Amino acid sequence: MPELRKDPVIGRWVIISTERAKRPQYSTTRKESLPGAPCPFCPGNEEMTPPEILAYRPDGSQNDQPGWTLRVVPNKYPALVNEEEPDRRRDGLYDSMAGLGAHEVIIETPEHEVNMGMLGQTKFQEILWAYRERILDLGKEERFRYILIFKNQGAEAGATLEHTHSQLIALPIVPRDVLEEIMGAKEHYKDKGRCIYCDIIRQEIEVRSRTVSENENFLVVCPFAPRFPFETWILPKEHSPFFEQAPKRQILDLGRVLRESLIRLNRALDNPPFNYIIHSNPLHDEDNGHYHWHVEIMPKLTQVAGFEWGSGFYINPVPPEEAAQSLREIAL
Amino acid sequence: MPELRKDPVIGRWVIISTERAKRPQYSTTRKESLPGAPCPFCPGNEEMTPPEILAYRPDGSQNDQPGWTLRVVPNKYPALVNEEEPDRRRDGLYDSMAGLGAHEVIIETPEHEVNMGMLGQTKFQEILWAYRERILDLGKEERFRYILIFKNQGAEAGATLEHTHSQLIALPIVPRDVLEEIMGAKEHYKDKGRCIYCDIIRQEIEVRSRTVSENENFLVVCPFAPRFPFETWILPKEHSPFFEQAPKRQILDLGRVLRESLIRLNRALDNPPFNYIIHSNPLHDEDNGHYHWHVEIMPKLTQVAGFEWGSGFYINPVPPEEAAQSLREIAL
Repeated sequence: MPELRKDPVIGRWVIISTERAKRPQYSTTRKESLPGAPCPFCPGNEEMTPPEILAYRPDGSQNDQPGWTLRVVPNKYPALVNEEEPDRRRDGLYDSMAGLGAHEVIIETPEHEVNMGMLGQTKFQEILWAYRERILDLGKEERFRYILIFKNQGAEAGATLEHTHSQLIALPIVPRDVLEEIMGAKEHYKDKGRCIYCDIIRQEIEVRSRTVSENENFLVVCPFAPRFPFETWILPKEHSPFFEQAPKRQILDLGRVLRESLIRLNRALDNPPFNYIIHSNPLHDEDNGHYHWHVEIMPKLTQVAGFEWGSGFYINPVPPEEAAQSLREIAL
Repeated sequence: MPELRKDPVIGRWVIISTERAKRPQYSTTRKESLPGAPCPFCPGNEEMTPPEILAYRPDGSQNDQPGWTLRVVPNKYPALVNEEEPDRRRDGLYDSMAGLGAHEVIIETPEHEVNMGMLGQTKFQEILWAYRERILDLGKEERFRYILIFKNQGAEAGATLEHTHSQLIALPIVPRDVLEEIMGAKEHYKDKGRCIYCDIIRQEIEVRSRTVSENENFLVVCPFAPRFPFETWILPKEHSPFFEQAPKRQILDLGRVLRESLIRLNRALDNPPFNYIIHSNPLHDEDNGHYHWHVEIMPKLTQVAGFEWGSGFYINPVPPEEAAQSLREIAL
């Protein structure tokens, strides 16, 4: 059973997840599939994954059979499992709790496409809609406090299977990076009476030097203090704490903007490995009207090393003003 | 000029360091030296590095000439430079300051050895003594607030040159991961009147399941909530906030214990890439009698991916009790 453990000095939680160690080729962790082995995410191989939780099947085909355009399945090697009560334990200095949660895989397309940026606009919209549906469904579970949706593309970004997919992890506690954003936003709100992300949007639109693109609903920028070269944020102009409460027109537009942003990165950087993460408010928490959901995309061009691990500082060789200019100038 | 920038929401500082982008092969960042190219850290190639800051030369040879056993030079592509005043600037929401600091490379041996664990015991002691000398020297500079000493071995751990070396970065602000440890230790001290690291040492010696080795001066453990598989901490039994104030007998013994710990990891995991970091108290700060210096070693077997970047949570497939047992059982 997975277990959540808390560092007694700094309060950082880790998931001790022995299930994950059962993945093929654990020691290198580069790829789960050997070259030439069948892809568990391709149609016809549905029995290689656990039974599906959600699928879009325009042809009315049967569960766990080909015919789907998008499929959500439990992760075969889950970091957390939805079986236990989140009982808290204490042993001297140390706190831990049962590894309650959910870990799902969103298989974005039946095609064995390895580069998400090659997918069409309606496909992006379908993927984002599936995220929304899964959050709304899992959010009914009172024991879950946060749902993190993220994508790893490329081995350097942590992908172990190449067929394009995203992941969802539901957690029994709010992760500390999320809490930090919420606390920071709350401080600003207490101080200024305004949302800090709304203020960032205002300042970036005024300054322009870090803007990548803009439309009615979204502003795309390289942030002022990015950890990674070409880090790109998609900020909805309309203030709202929850991604999953975004109306359909906004989700459809996000599909356009996310696709366009990935195409810009692909062209500027020759299809880099990357992660993106949906930053949204914790579940069951209506207090945080000061938070503002958004998407962060992080190409993986630099290696994180001892300095970053020891300091929490990041060294970024590319100023965001230069990155934004390159991305702005990409012809679409 | 490098610039330090602060994220307006969470307060994380990053170094925007355009000097670093001038490194050869920046876009892949795997190796600075092409195969067959001369190694800038080998004797005879001293002119390939900036002039040395410190060298141990038992044969009395000249500066920047062969004959040294250990050599400290400025990083040719520094993340920070010791030239400017750390002036703070503000532009609307955004804070920044000049990238004042120092970035040095400790070339540990004239041999083109790529695996630190192959070095002898007196060599380890010499390396640690050089760390101590450099901190004591740079610590005279009032504008530096923290000195981070770290090692990257292997491309996956962020090393760009294979000849074994460590690095030192002096910073004008105390990094947030260090502050978090100090705050955590302070909280515990206020609450219990004891050092939390001393308490960890006591509990680990009692429990034994996470102990790797122990002698008069040091306890080596796999910590209770490790971010990475086989993460290993070396804790001095004697309470002291400052690594650089360790007496000579303790530095000599740390050389033995660090070498032994790396040999255990090399044998258990077939020479893994790794980072180690010396955790010490901020400079010019005598208040933190509650902090306790130590060394953290992190093998890089798993890939950090979107989940970790989005949450600050880590998924670790190997319980520290299992890792400690494997390491304990290694015959030395």
